[in-house]
Amino acid sequence: MGNIIKGQDVAQTLLISNCQRVSDGVKPRLAVIRVGNHPSEISYERSVIKKLVPLGIDCVSYVYDQNIEQEAFDTAFDQINHDSSVHSILLLKPLPKHLSLDHVIQTIDSLKDVDCIGMVNMAKIYQEGPKGFLPCTAEAVLKIVSYAGIELKGKSIVMVGFGMVIGRPLTLLLLEAGSTVTVCNEYTKDLKAESSRADVLIVATGVIHLINEEHVKKDAVVIDVGINVNDKGRLVGDVNFEDVLEKAASVTPVPGGVGTVTTYVLATHVFEAYEQQK
Amino acid sequence: MGNIIKGQDVAQTLLISNCQRVSDGVKPRLAVIRVGNHPSEISYERSVIKKLVPLGIDCVSYVYDQNIEQEAFDTAFDQINHDSSVHSILLLKPLPKHLSLDHVIQTIDSLKDVDCIGMVNMAKIYQEGPKGFLPCTAEAVLKIVSYAGIELKGKSIVMVGFGMVIGRPLTLLLLEAGSTVTVCNEYTKDLKAESSRADVLIVATGVIHLINEEHVKKDAVVIDVGINVNDKGRLVGDVNFEDVLEKAASVTPVPGGVGTVTTYVLATHVFEAYEQQK
Repeated sequence: MGNIIKGQDVAQTLLISNCQRVSDGVKPRLAVIRVGNHPSEISYERSVIKKLVPLGIDCVSYVYDQNIEQEAFDTAFDQINHDSSVHSILLLKPLPKHLSLDHVIQTIDSLKDVDCIGMVNMAKIYQEGPKGFLPCTAEAVLKIVSYAGIELKGKSIVMVGFGMVIGRPLTLLLLEAGSTVTVCNEYTKDLKAESSRADVLIVATGVIHLINEEHVKKDAVVIDVGINVNDKGRLVGDVNFEDVLEKAASVTPVPGGVGTVTTYVLATHVFEAYEQQK
Repeated sequence: MGNIIKGQDVAQTLLISNCQRVSDGVKPRLAVIRVGNHPSEISYERSVIKKLVPLGIDCVSYVYDQNIEQEAFDTAFDQINHDSSVHSILLLKPLPKHLSLDHVIQTIDSLKDVDCIGMVNMAKIYQEGPKGFLPCTAEAVLKIVSYAGIELKGKSIVMVGFGMVIGRPLTLLLLEAGSTVTVCNEYTKDLKAESSRADVLIVATGVIHLINEEHVKKDAVVIDVGINVNDKGRLVGDVNFEDVLEKAASVTPVPGGVGTVTTYVLATHVFEAYEQQK
């Protein structure tokens, strides 16, 4: 029977102390930009506000009609981006399909880009060497790996899923740390053969319970980045938690795992952004 | 006994026809920037000039003293970058250790950046969607894969080495094409176990004859990106060519494999850069 890695414990150990640096009475301000009223975005926005406000962060929501035109959106974004009272920017995604992110990607101030959507911070992930702000979820996975006491060098890591938010940045970061990384996707011929070789298995696919006990090597660490709603309306991950917990050394739950850590990573980025702009 | 994939054949089939688009009598100009007199850079510069000039490309070398100061180098680079008679820029690497590439990375005109050293083209590799110019060697490997008739979706590809020029871009590009990719490095615990699972094995380590017959699955395609000089002064790859050729379906030789294709990829980029700036 494996351990349950609770996001709250990871945050307590590695992150919350970083949110207590500001002693001058000024509240760092986070602009949360939302277009439209997608329930998952509203739910994420609420959880960000709920956790960040008690840490002393001033969260300001900017909400736009989902039919806003590109030019108006870009102009609104420019104002926020140039507003010196805003220290950091979180843009909720996905945007409505008619809107392009190109202008945001090219112009967002890299010091305010606390979730790594801009070109400067992306290019730093791609390159060797110093990084800017990492995507919060990708960094949350690294914090969990660190909390679990895993030395990345030489570890065999299998990443299932290759999206912009998790798969791409994490693959590059894990490789730079010296892991041997295999990335699987929907076309992978024998997922079980691949995933069951992993010392650390990271899953970010959006497919409910894709990963069961048979996909996991004995004593592996399993990190579930999936957030799905099942037919009973409950939040579930990509990993069949109870099934896998029997065999793995440790597993992150959903909810209460990666998502919780992600929000605290965001908080630390907001404080770092404030410090850098002071 | 496998096939030998000759770089010249790949270039003839896929690339050289792309270099005959210019019919208006103007020669596209490539600026080749070299700092110092490193033999491998001089040798690459010569081979570029030897192959590109007959295709109708005007190659202009800009050579700087290896002790040039940062500010002088950046100023010289700015002049080339802003010179409208220069359509494309190839910066030979590595630069002397005292010089930083930061200014070049941030400012190079992405339309002239035919070997993908700038931030804009790097960020496009990192992101999903349309790409700018790819690093020539990484694109050469993709051309060889295409010439060999390999459908990337679902293929198991093992990449040995994770440098900026080959490993990073190729890993992202192969994953975006739907391959299952494993990246190995010097810390990988059992390289043979990893590499012998590959349908396509790509090697870019700079270690002479790291890969032998025992590392290769029967009928795999093996692409050798290594260029090393052995103790007899001969160019050799990272793959023990004769040994592996017995077992693999096909192998690229060194010299005359990836390197040859790379130079023709560069030529097509120079023509594309010219067309885009016309």
